[in-house]
Amino acid sequence: MADTNIDVLVKNVKDFSHNAHSKELAQLRDQLKDLRINDVIDIVERTDAARGAMVMRLLSRARFLSVFDALDPNHQADIVQALGSDATAEYFDQLGPEDRAQLLDELPAEIAEEMLRTLDSEDKDATYTVLGYEKGTVGRHMSPEVPEIYPEYTVEETLQLLRIIAEDVETIYTLPVVKHDRTLVGVTSLKSLFTADGSKTIGELIDEPVYAYATDDAEETVRWFLPLDFLAMPVVDESDRLVGMFTFDDAHDIQEREDSEDSARSGASEPLNRPYLSTPVMRLVRSRIVWLAVLAVSALLTVQVLDTFESTLEKAVVLSLFIPLLTGTGGNTGNQAATTVTRSLALGDVQKRDIGLVMWREARVGLILGAVLGVAGFLLAWAVYGLPIGIVIGTTLTLVCTMSATVGGAMPIVAKAVGADPAVFSNPFITTFCDAAGLIIYFLIAKAVLGI
Amino acid sequence: MADTNIDVLVKNVKDFSHNAHSKELAQLRDQLKDLRINDVIDIVERTDAARGAMVMRLLSRARFLSVFDALDPNHQADIVQALGSDATAEYFDQLGPEDRAQLLDELPAEIAEEMLRTLDSEDKDATYTVLGYEKGTVGRHMSPEVPEIYPEYTVEETLQLLRIIAEDVETIYTLPVVKHDRTLVGVTSLKSLFTADGSKTIGELIDEPVYAYATDDAEETVRWFLPLDFLAMPVVDESDRLVGMFTFDDAHDIQEREDSEDSARSGASEPLNRPYLSTPVMRLVRSRIVWLAVLAVSALLTVQVLDTFESTLEKAVVLSLFIPLLTGTGGNTGNQAATTVTRSLALGDVQKRDIGLVMWREARVGLILGAVLGVAGFLLAWAVYGLPIGIVIGTTLTLVCTMSATVGGAMPIVAKAVGADPAVFSNPFITTFCDAAGLIIYFLIAKAVLGI
Repeated sequence: MADTNIDVLVKNVKDFSHNAHSKELAQLRDQLKDLRINDVIDIVERTDAARGAMVMRLLSRARFLSVFDALDPNHQADIVQALGSDATAEYFDQLGPEDRAQLLDELPAEIAEEMLRTLDSEDKDATYTVLGYEKGTVGRHMSPEVPEIYPEYTVEETLQLLRIIAEDVETIYTLPVVKHDRTLVGVTSLKSLFTADGSKTIGELIDEPVYAYATDDAEETVRWFLPLDFLAMPVVDESDRLVGMFTFDDAHDIQEREDSEDSARSGASEPLNRPYLSTPVMRLVRSRIVWLAVLAVSALLTVQVLDTFESTLEKAVVLSLFIPLLTGTGGNTGNQAATTVTRSLALGDVQKRDIGLVMWREARVGLILGAVLGVAGFLLAWAVYGLPIGIVIGTTLTLVCTMSATVGGAMPIVAKAVGADPAVFSNPFITTFCDAAGLIIYFLIAKAVLGI
Repeated sequence: MADTNIDVLVKNVKDFSHNAHSKELAQLRDQLKDLRINDVIDIVERTDAARGAMVMRLLSRARFLSVFDALDPNHQADIVQALGSDATAEYFDQLGPEDRAQLLDELPAEIAEEMLRTLDSEDKDATYTVLGYEKGTVGRHMSPEVPEIYPEYTVEETLQLLRIIAEDVETIYTLPVVKHDRTLVGVTSLKSLFTADGSKTIGELIDEPVYAYATDDAEETVRWFLPLDFLAMPVVDESDRLVGMFTFDDAHDIQEREDSEDSARSGASEPLNRPYLSTPVMRLVRSRIVWLAVLAVSALLTVQVLDTFESTLEKAVVLSLFIPLLTGTGGNTGNQAATTVTRSLALGDVQKRDIGLVMWREARVGLILGAVLGVAGFLLAWAVYGLPIGIVIGTTLTLVCTMSATVGGAMPIVAKAVGADPAVFSNPFITTFCDAAGLIIYFLIAKAVLGI
């Protein structure tokens, strides 16, 4: 399907009024039928929620679910509100309990309650089990629908059991093995059972168990779980009893959301949690205005610093020419360090306890970078503005780079330690800090060297 | 396993000389045995390649493979070179063909050839098939080891076939169905077969095929494939003939690598592609120095701009006080727009053809943000520095924000269109551009308002 055809469809959808002729709708329904599922998702993500809901209404039941499942929970909530809870209730029980929980978190309370009421008691229980764990934990993202398989079962028995319960559990490919009190013993896989002699017992086919606690932090768990390439792993409670399965697709959703959040925050805005083109302009403004204002207010610090050195500036206006260059370079060095450390924290490569190690590495990196730029800056400034200015610029660059890298490396870890988002410190705040601190270093050196 | 124990082990490993006593090594081997696999990976990722290789040598064959599989290809290559190709050759044929191809890409040519020679002809063929596709395509990341299942097979026949070939194919959970000329018909799953009546034919169990072309761009494919939550999908050639399977774990590796690259570039450094703590300091310097120098050179533009307006500055030194505030706010606004659009491009929410749409949205967002900050800035500057300065600051903020958001939104798309990395433009270049352009706007307004 060529992108231009998608664009034509999106345009058609946008032109539709809310009471489009049934003939137009029937035509659109036919066109949607011929599209690959990812193209349908594309159309929904390129229009606002009202139009997205209109498109969703025209899909078959199976396709509705596939498309709905692929959307961000916030976008799902927008669509549910546009469709009305009645229209979505029939799909709600088709979602996994963990997906249902994420969606409920994003819906207004009264709609969430309404949707919950439509569930049968089994689905309701499963949903409440998941909702019983705190946001941001593994338990909140696991499926409580797991088979109970005991080590003494034969392969043949287990395969028969799985055939019966296949539709009622999250996955039959990765199988947790438990004692009768549900204590986790290990895992096995359908592939192992499938290729094994039917008279063997499950106990003979158990692999080393890789598992998580339901109360573990979801993001940290995802970072070590996904590289292992497992489809799923068991989740246990504090007494090592099986309570659910955590699957790669939920892990992936968590990671993508966290990465989007880190990306937005490092650019000084709040994450949209929905596709850009389906986000209204005023929501874009709201996602940015607070950070922008906070940063502008902290930038008043630089006005203050410069005000203090105004007499120095008056005596040597030439100094003001280098202000953006010096603050920019300091900001860039600080950013480089902060971005690298923030990503390493997110991937779990660096921990809070590594702060000393990180600062020592970054101080050396900053000094080397600063020395290289400092020599270049010295030569250039000397050639154009004379030796004293050359010395001021060269020294300032070296010191500013060393300071910025060290502080830039430390800030994300400090942020994490006090429970703030490291990504916020990887760009916006580091830049503001380096601006103010860099100016102070600059003018102190200038006063000393120029004797003013 | 508490983190502090891991730290003790890492410290032990670091203290080992390369000819550690066999007694110490035996002790370390025992300690490693008791660790969960993710803790072993943690230790390898927190030491340099030589030490990591030493730890790897002490692992059982199965654990060696699990740990090795979880590392970045570049880090794998470092470890292979530290271990020597002889020591790793025995594990090399245990990797999937697509993982083998990624590793070979990162090894020096002579070592890569040596490793390839150790493979039997079947493994060698599979590897060459993957290496035959260009870097960055789906073909380069697929497994060519797929079963051939025909629609006329019965479920019973297929299950028997799968039992025999289970170990030789990438996955038996997602099953491509083909005609006798290997044209893809659709997919089915082991779960469907497993719960179906044995006398049914495969043709009755086929789902809508979701697939990719081997020559498709891997990153773009991953962005639509992962949200669908599939374990795997078939890959076909230009005649729609099955050539391989693309699995969620390879998709995940691609996405994580791309996100790390975007994160590094948006912070003006090159991606490390290996864990921070196992990266030598000089490699950190190398990943940053070029970008930093390029940005410093482009920042010379700001010196140039200020030099042009030096007489204006001399007449009103007070103007220099606001330089960091104004350039900083412009940079932040540009960053916000650029970061949002870069992430949307990466997720596939925004396409190159959307540039007009994006600029129009960002111009409105920028104008609103600028108007809010402009009014605040006007009032504040008026109160402290008088009405004319208030007017200059207020007007400049409004114009600079509008310009920065519009340009910031457009730049990543322009970068992508000309084949550059959008992430580079999301922070470093936008900042430099906004600095210079913002200063010009500032001084032109100041000259007009103050009449100097």
